[in-house]
Amino acid sequence: MALLALDLVGVFAFALSGGLAAVRKRFDVVGVLVLAAAAGLGGGILRDVLIGAVPPVNISDWRLLAAATAAGLLTFFFHPRVSRIQQLVLVLDAVGLGLFAVAGTLKALELGTTPHTAVVVGVLTGVGGGAIRDLLAGEPPRVLAHRELYAIPAVLGASVVAVAWWAGVAHPAITWGSVALVVTLRLLALWRNWQAPAPRPPLG
Amino acid sequence: MALLALDLVGVFAFALSGGLAAVRKRFDVVGVLVLAAAAGLGGGILRDVLIGAVPPVNISDWRLLAAATAAGLLTFFFHPRVSRIQQLVLVLDAVGLGLFAVAGTLKALELGTTPHTAVVVGVLTGVGGGAIRDLLAGEPPRVLAHRELYAIPAVLGASVVAVAWWAGVAHPAITWGSVALVVTLRLLALWRNWQAPAPRPPLG
Amino acid sequence: MALLALDLVGVFAFALSGGLAAVRKRFDVVGVLVLAAAAGLGGGILRDVLIGAVPPVNISDWRLLAAATAAGLLTFFFHPRVSRIQQLVLVLDAVGLGLFAVAGTLKALELGTTPHTAVVVGVLTGVGGGAIRDLLAGEPPRVLAHRELYAIPAVLGASVVAVAWWAGVAHPAITWGSVALVVTLRLLALWRNWQAPAPRPPLG
Repeated sequence: MALLALDLVGVFAFALSGGLAAVRKRFDVVGVLVLAAAAGLGGGILRDVLIGAVPPVNISDWRLLAAATAAGLLTFFFHPRVSRIQQLVLVLDAVGLGLFAVAGTLKALELGTTPHTAVVVGVLTGVGGGAIRDLLAGEPPRVLAHRELYAIPAVLGASVVAVAWWAGVAHPAITWGSVALVVTLRLLALWRNWQAPAPRPPLG
Repeated sequence: MALLALDLVGVFAFALSGGLAAVRKRFDVVGVLVLAAAAGLGGGILRDVLIGAVPPVNISDWRLLAAATAAGLLTFFFHPRVSRIQQLVLVLDAVGLGLFAVAGTLKALELGTTPHTAVVVGVLTGVGGGAIRDLLAGEPPRVLAHRELYAIPAVLGASVVAVAWWAGVAHPAITWGSVALVVTLRLLALWRNWQAPAPRPPLG
Repeated sequence: MALLALDLVGVFAFALSGGLAAVRKRFDVVGVLVLAAAAGLGGGILRDVLIGAVPPVNISDWRLLAAATAAGLLTFFFHPRVSRIQQLVLVLDAVGLGLFAVAGTLKALELGTTPHTAVVVGVLTGVGGGAIRDLLAGEPPRVLAHRELYAIPAVLGASVVAVAWWAGVAHPAITWGSVALVVTLRLLALWRNWQAPAPRPPLG
């Protein structure tokens, strides 16, 4: 129950970012609702297709669909106000990133994948929705280009969970600690403007 | 048999739109054939991957592959003439939209999904091919941006089918009525230039 | 073992092309590693999702992941040098194309698909990674637009393998001959600048 509530928060926060991206692109109501759904639900859909858990829970559980749709409608009707709480959306987005990366890793491990596969699946769960949002908006995924330190916290959190599982010491404290690690690193990166390294320019 | 014929019409019409998009982008013969196949078969492939019916019938039934390839070759060799019958292509595209949305919804229901999942899958079957076509052509999907009233008729038709199934009153008359509803709404939207609502501009 | 070595060569070569594309786009380290992985592993992931072999071997076998990551890191740190051996990267890429197209076709046939489905799956295995690389970089797939004679050799090689299987004369000599056919045609196309035909311009 608590887990569902957290999942709904993550879907809702990601879906707000999708709706706002669609408004900025001057998409119509279909575009706003679809980008909200893509951002909120896309990472989990990617996860479930990759591990064979179809139909994906993100299109079979009506509560998750409803959370994404609610965020889309909210953005459609009140986007100037949603834009004004951009800071809060970024914080909720960080929470969503941590929850999705860790929960995605655990779901893959429970279905019997190896630890490194689970890390790949977990990270894709965390960053995939935003990447699909950007592609549908006609832009390269921010996570690849914007040096924002977004994927790296997810990789670290997913790795802690997978290593603990592999070592046989899986425990709720480690799960929640990993979520906290991702969220903290992401918020610190936002606050201190930490950046991911970029390739050095060619010599000539 | 009648169903197959209708399916072939839908694939062929969607594939013509894909081939024309590739010609407009000055793609080569591979681009024309692939965009034709993506537009004609992509929605059904997406549907089958999401509900776990793999390999997707759209790449296992040679007749559907052949219809998409024929449309691609036709566009490659005779695209000025295909452009001139653009009106007819739009009508056939509306028929394809109705058939794919309703048939996609039914296929999901038959595989045991819940009604709301079936609606999502059905709509993706109807609009997914065009969206993949646009993404491969390097543009945001028209269905999200162009205010054309394209997805909304599909949502309505898929919902009628799913509600009837859920209420236990599924019947061929309802199936065909839903197809007719989608096609009629789509053609009316084209004819009367009905538009989907867009977000109101921000105040400042 | 020899097969694994060849697979690693293909993944590595494709991943170099992905890493270089990310550097050209001025992506950060995440972008370089993800584009390397997408280019090196994406075709095989697409193949396995389409034929239901999940989780895809390209995210479950750590050696393939490691090859893609190594190519990504190499490009990140030494991209000016990697750019200078562009010729060698193109040759290795041709080898990867041949191996992936033929191996993808065989994997589909072994899982029981019909020959024409296996050709589609095989070609997607060969060209899919590059297409995903280009989409993530925000560009239409080169394979559709650049007239380079890239997909057509893959179609020919995959077709030879599928026809031989269908005729009951599958044999390692045919498999390797098909790989050699793809690689030779691709290298000849590069050397002689052979181009795929493009649609003739409209009359008006």
